[in-house]
Amino acid sequence: MKKYLKVDEWKIIEEGFSPELNRVSESIFSLGNGRMGHRANFEEGYSGESLQGSYLAGIYYPDKTKVGWWKNGYPEYAAKVLNAANWGTIRIQVDNELLDLNRCKVLEFKRELNMRDGYLERSFKAEFESGRQVSVQVKRFLSIVHDSVGAIRYSLTPLNFDGELSVLFDIDGDISNQDANYGEKFWKEVEKDSATDVAVLTMKTKRTNFFACTGIAFDVQKDGKTISFESAPMVREKYIGREIKIKAEEGKELVFCKYAVNYTSLNTPKDKLRLHVEKELGVVCSLGFNNLLKMQADAWHLKWRESDIEIEGDPEAQQAIRYNIFQLYQTYTGEDPALNIGPKGFTGEKYGGATHWDTEAYCIPFYLATAAPKVSRNLLIYRFKQLPQAIENAKKLGFFDGAALFPMVTMNGEECHNEWEITFEEIHRNGSISFAIYNYIRYTGDQDYLIEYGLEVLLAIARFWKQRVNWSIKKERYVILGVTGPNEYENNVDNNWYTNYIASWCLEYALEAMRYVKGRDEAKYYTLMNRIQFKEEEITSWKDIIDKMYYPKDDKQQVFLQQDGFLDKELILVKNLGPENLPLNQKWSWDRILRSCFIKQADVLQGLYFFQDRFDLDTLKRNFDFYEPMTVHESSLSPCVHSILAAKLGYEKLAYDFYLRTSRLDLDDYNNDTEDGLHITSMAGTWMTIVEGFAGMRMVDDELTFNPMLPEKWKSFSFNMVYRGKSILVKVNKEGVEIL
Amino acid sequence: MKKYLKVDEWKIIEEGFSPELNRVSESIFSLGNGRMGHRANFEEGYSGESLQGSYLAGIYYPDKTKVGWWKNGYPEYAAKVLNAANWGTIRIQVDNELLDLNRCKVLEFKRELNMRDGYLERSFKAEFESGRQVSVQVKRFLSIVHDSVGAIRYSLTPLNFDGELSVLFDIDGDISNQDANYGEKFWKEVEKDSATDVAVLTMKTKRTNFFACTGIAFDVQKDGKTISFESAPMVREKYIGREIKIKAEEGKELVFCKYAVNYTSLNTPKDKLRLHVEKELGVVCSLGFNNLLKMQADAWHLKWRESDIEIEGDPEAQQAIRYNIFQLYQTYTGEDPALNIGPKGFTGEKYGGATHWDTEAYCIPFYLATAAPKVSRNLLIYRFKQLPQAIENAKKLGFFDGAALFPMVTMNGEECHNEWEITFEEIHRNGSISFAIYNYIRYTGDQDYLIEYGLEVLLAIARFWKQRVNWSIKKERYVILGVTGPNEYENNVDNNWYTNYIASWCLEYALEAMRYVKGRDEAKYYTLMNRIQFKEEEITSWKDIIDKMYYPKDDKQQVFLQQDGFLDKELILVKNLGPENLPLNQKWSWDRILRSCFIKQADVLQGLYFFQDRFDLDTLKRNFDFYEPMTVHESSLSPCVHSILAAKLGYEKLAYDFYLRTSRLDLDDYNNDTEDGLHITSMAGTWMTIVEGFAGMRMVDDELTFNPMLPEKWKSFSFNMVYRGKSILVKVNKEGVEIL
Repeated sequence: MKKYLKVDEWKIIEEGFSPELNRVSESIFSLGNGRMGHRANFEEGYSGESLQGSYLAGIYYPDKTKVGWWKNGYPEYAAKVLNAANWGTIRIQVDNELLDLNRCKVLEFKRELNMRDGYLERSFKAEFESGRQVSVQVKRFLSIVHDSVGAIRYSLTPLNFDGELSVLFDIDGDISNQDANYGEKFWKEVEKDSATDVAVLTMKTKRTNFFACTGIAFDVQKDGKTISFESAPMVREKYIGREIKIKAEEGKELVFCKYAVNYTSLNTPKDKLRLHVEKELGVVCSLGFNNLLKMQADAWHLKWRESDIEIEGDPEAQQAIRYNIFQLYQTYTGEDPALNIGPKGFTGEKYGGATHWDTEAYCIPFYLATAAPKVSRNLLIYRFKQLPQAIENAKKLGFFDGAALFPMVTMNGEECHNEWEITFEEIHRNGSISFAIYNYIRYTGDQDYLIEYGLEVLLAIARFWKQRVNWSIKKERYVILGVTGPNEYENNVDNNWYTNYIASWCLEYALEAMRYVKGRDEAKYYTLMNRIQFKEEEITSWKDIIDKMYYPKDDKQQVFLQQDGFLDKELILVKNLGPENLPLNQKWSWDRILRSCFIKQADVLQGLYFFQDRFDLDTLKRNFDFYEPMTVHESSLSPCVHSILAAKLGYEKLAYDFYLRTSRLDLDDYNNDTEDGLHITSMAGTWMTIVEGFAGMRMVDDELTFNPMLPEKWKSFSFNMVYRGKSILVKVNKEGVEIL
Repeated sequence: MKKYLKVDEWKIIEEGFSPELNRVSESIFSLGNGRMGHRANFEEGYSGESLQGSYLAGIYYPDKTKVGWWKNGYPEYAAKVLNAANWGTIRIQVDNELLDLNRCKVLEFKRELNMRDGYLERSFKAEFESGRQVSVQVKRFLSIVHDSVGAIRYSLTPLNFDGELSVLFDIDGDISNQDANYGEKFWKEVEKDSATDVAVLTMKTKRTNFFACTGIAFDVQKDGKTISFESAPMVREKYIGREIKIKAEEGKELVFCKYAVNYTSLNTPKDKLRLHVEKELGVVCSLGFNNLLKMQADAWHLKWRESDIEIEGDPEAQQAIRYNIFQLYQTYTGEDPALNIGPKGFTGEKYGGATHWDTEAYCIPFYLATAAPKVSRNLLIYRFKQLPQAIENAKKLGFFDGAALFPMVTMNGEECHNEWEITFEEIHRNGSISFAIYNYIRYTGDQDYLIEYGLEVLLAIARFWKQRVNWSIKKERYVILGVTGPNEYENNVDNNWYTNYIASWCLEYALEAMRYVKGRDEAKYYTLMNRIQFKEEEITSWKDIIDKMYYPKDDKQQVFLQQDGFLDKELILVKNLGPENLPLNQKWSWDRILRSCFIKQADVLQGLYFFQDRFDLDTLKRNFDFYEPMTVHESSLSPCVHSILAAKLGYEKLAYDFYLRTSRLDLDDYNNDTEDGLHITSMAGTWMTIVEGFAGMRMVDDELTFNPMLPEKWKSFSFNMVYRGKSILVKVNKEGVEIL
């Protein structure tokens, strides 16, 4: 845990240069616009600790699966988002001295992420070994108006010298991923070209054959006036740049603007990439940095109008929630149904940038309430389009007749994760996909979605569960054996309560959806039923499973059991565990974690959260009181659910503590892993803690209801929401709740 | 399954050339002498399908562990035996034509493994593209008299031409392992040298820095007379050879003898390696091929005298058992306590040549009965010497106070396997190490072993179990959660009956051993107890666990349960499973296997086998009848245990079928995997099926007893055994059993 950033309601501020925190800051100050993103690497380059990262949405590589002992059913490959061409640099040299904060003396340093306007700013004073000093101010952003565009304004003033400056504007495509085997490279050069103030590089990925074209243009101002210049080409394999020499004079500001445009073959024909890039580069240059930045700020103001949360009386909490919202919108804008939300967004390489169930369980509620329905709808359609692969995936595991198992981790619908206890067994993910459809329709009222897309997905998932249960002669109930629940600190258990519950619910909801669609559009209903060769007896068997599903519980304590064997464990409370044991995943071996009672993230409680309307407060309380004290929250997805439930139970302090923990997870580097990238998907959970937790928002019988609680420290909080076409403002203060 | 080898009581015979079976035959005709071994690669080289393999006992490389998601406690590396310098070649060229059975027309071909005398013979007639024909006879062996020595006699007769022959005698150290990443090489050259009829190459392994020196010498006879020759050096990185040119004449036999000597730094100082090699090469050459082969045959005859099993009336069964015994003695001779028995011996690379629990559970009974006690004792001492690493290994997993967990797979005592469900959870292996000590003492009467070595190991294992159990409030019993039993088709289960049983037994036996040692040598007892800081209360806690261990069972069917959740499974019999499902490990995904009832290898039955004297026949029968029909025997270690128990229960046909399956597993390539190497450790199980199964040998109250059964097809069978210093011959025929 670290506390090195200044608190400000609209900004993230780092003052003073801390090389040892540079990788953490590179994550925290990341920029993105839904289409691309990069870590906050220094424009002039940096030879110290740094993770250079520049990512294009949807561009991935299938890395061959490597395991000790191959198990039948493993996917051939694990996909990962590729670190792509780096255009975010303006390299500066004075005579033979490179501007590099790792070698210079850093006299002043400040970095600010301006969340209101959507840009990153950095200023510093540095002294070269020769004693020469420069003052630098940099602004940069990735445009959310033109999502192929990025821009940098680099201002440099010599403080105590005249001399010749060499400035290099380049695109470096010779990039590797951090976790690549033996520094393996995934990009090949296609073509490159440059002229005085412009350069273009087209690359393609190995095997997947994605093309990406990056173009840059740049201009120079001296003392407020645009000047012309000569430039020399710098060419290497997978690299192109232009170097200019310019006379620098003491006290006279030099400003370098660099514009970049990126197009990929995901949305543009391969042979038109360069054309598009060059055309848009022209537009961008003619607009210029200041106009582009103005448009950026206006666009962000609009976003904030729809999604801001305002907290009075607690600047730390205020800053945190805005940061979470800001990063979510940097990652996913909902424009493109081919895209999804990687757990780290564009801020790092961990989890391969692939889609997880986080999207359905955590992100959809956020986008439902803060954006037009089409955004969440696009996230649902993403899965709908991948239904054929999900059916194929289930087939590989022995399922049949159109049963679908959506992948645990995916880029294009194919499974790309290769631990058996997750890939093969963490099947509750299928439930969250049905639940997201239910949640979307409950919130938006868009029942038509069922007819066009939803029902087919629900049926394929229901078929999966039907085949996945088996009848236990011993229990005289249907059981689900060999699963991993949301709590990944238990693997391959029998009858995970959450999985059994959501499985049965999926069957129920599929039947309900069938009835609805049949009633609304019989023709379409029968067309679908014929196409998927649905048999009437499937209905009977589903009903039988719903009736006779087994749910492990403890009669004495009146709690649901996480799984059959839970009560054989030694039940120890986290508070009685010496701190030398935490975090468990770093201190304990895996088997010890697995046989312990400690819970990584909400499991039974995840179910009680999803299905709140089906359980009374007493039930919730008993289970919360039983499981919360054994939960270590070593998943970023855990504290938000506990916070919401704690708020519901009136455990105010607990709810508030969990809120701070989840909302400031990255800002305070709570788990010492922010350097790998931000916990993007759990940021949606943070938003939920306020709206569903403190404001107590629920959907009841097609209506929004609120049951608010105000954390002691807060004077008030308010937030904007979109609900069925209306923008509403919810204000909570000591007097109660106000809906405007 | 294949049936291409001729049946012969003392030989393995392949007639006719089958290139598609070449890799299988290379495994089957492998040679070894406990110190080194190689696959039956053709001396003249072969450009077709082939796995070249030449291995030196104990020479391994630590390959870095690669897993998708690192889990705390994983070993840094996975060790593997290295494919070492290949000296087994005599490459022949006539003018520009290479003798290569993949390119020549093969007119005749025969291969014989002579098990009685311990050598391999091959003869063929081949026609070059040019029409030239040669007749070739080759003999080769690895000496069990001088275990650093190998020899080849290569006879070639031109059938229809005169011409110049080029013959290359070489040592190729530029060798890779089949499974090496990207063809990575593990050997570096140290030095090499050669003269007219001799060459020496010293190599060392990367990282582990083992040195291995190989020397060769050769001579040539023409028409029965030794002739002198010139030779030219052939030199490359990691390679040295001498080429000779010789006039070949139609009908005149040329004989090339090649002798090789191998020493490694395991037993010889690095700077003396070459000296030793050259000295021994001199001795070998002066003896000559025929004398060496005579000594080899004599030594094998002696081995057979101690360990042969003779079967009358069933040549197929006879051939099979001799083949199993032959391969076991080719793999391990018991001379060196630093060595152990890899699952594939020297016949392939799979399982990395490392030590598994197979040694204790399967091989020790074989060596106990067929060799001097020191052989099994050396196998026990191997583990004793690795006790410090076993304690260290347990420590990494959170154990303390000298508790030991012996590795699942090891080269030098460190764990080198990296699947969590095996490495961390297949802890029953610890039990087999205690059991092997018990078994050794029971058979040999060597109680002194307890005082010097055994007790310390037993106590460290007992301490492990004490810490590994936990008290279940629900069951009011001690439970063992999160284990993988012998049946690896269940992972991470609770209360595996076998594991719970052997754990409790380990505590019992440790207490018994303490009493014995205390009574025999109080001084040594207290010295040990002080050294390991033994506390009296440990005894109390062990007794409590013995009293209150939980054993899952089904009261209705009166069987022990493989694990807590077994009866929730769908119980299907293998015979009701369509053949399209088998083998499961190739047809089903891992999760499906795990949640099925199908059993890879004896599990509850393994326990009933180990502890036969504690369970009555009815109990055995109920459990056998319950589990056998669900067992798929997809481990080579499984059929032998089932065969022994079937024999005990009087299920004659079943016992015989299992015997044939286990004994001819490789000869008939039953599992289609013989090409990867032979199933060496399960060959000991084959021996057990005859001695413990059909002959019904048991130790009862310090006496050998027999309870024989004669398979219908057999007239009689008899075997030699060593028991407490006496050689005995056991004969079973229709009349009964005779001990001579």
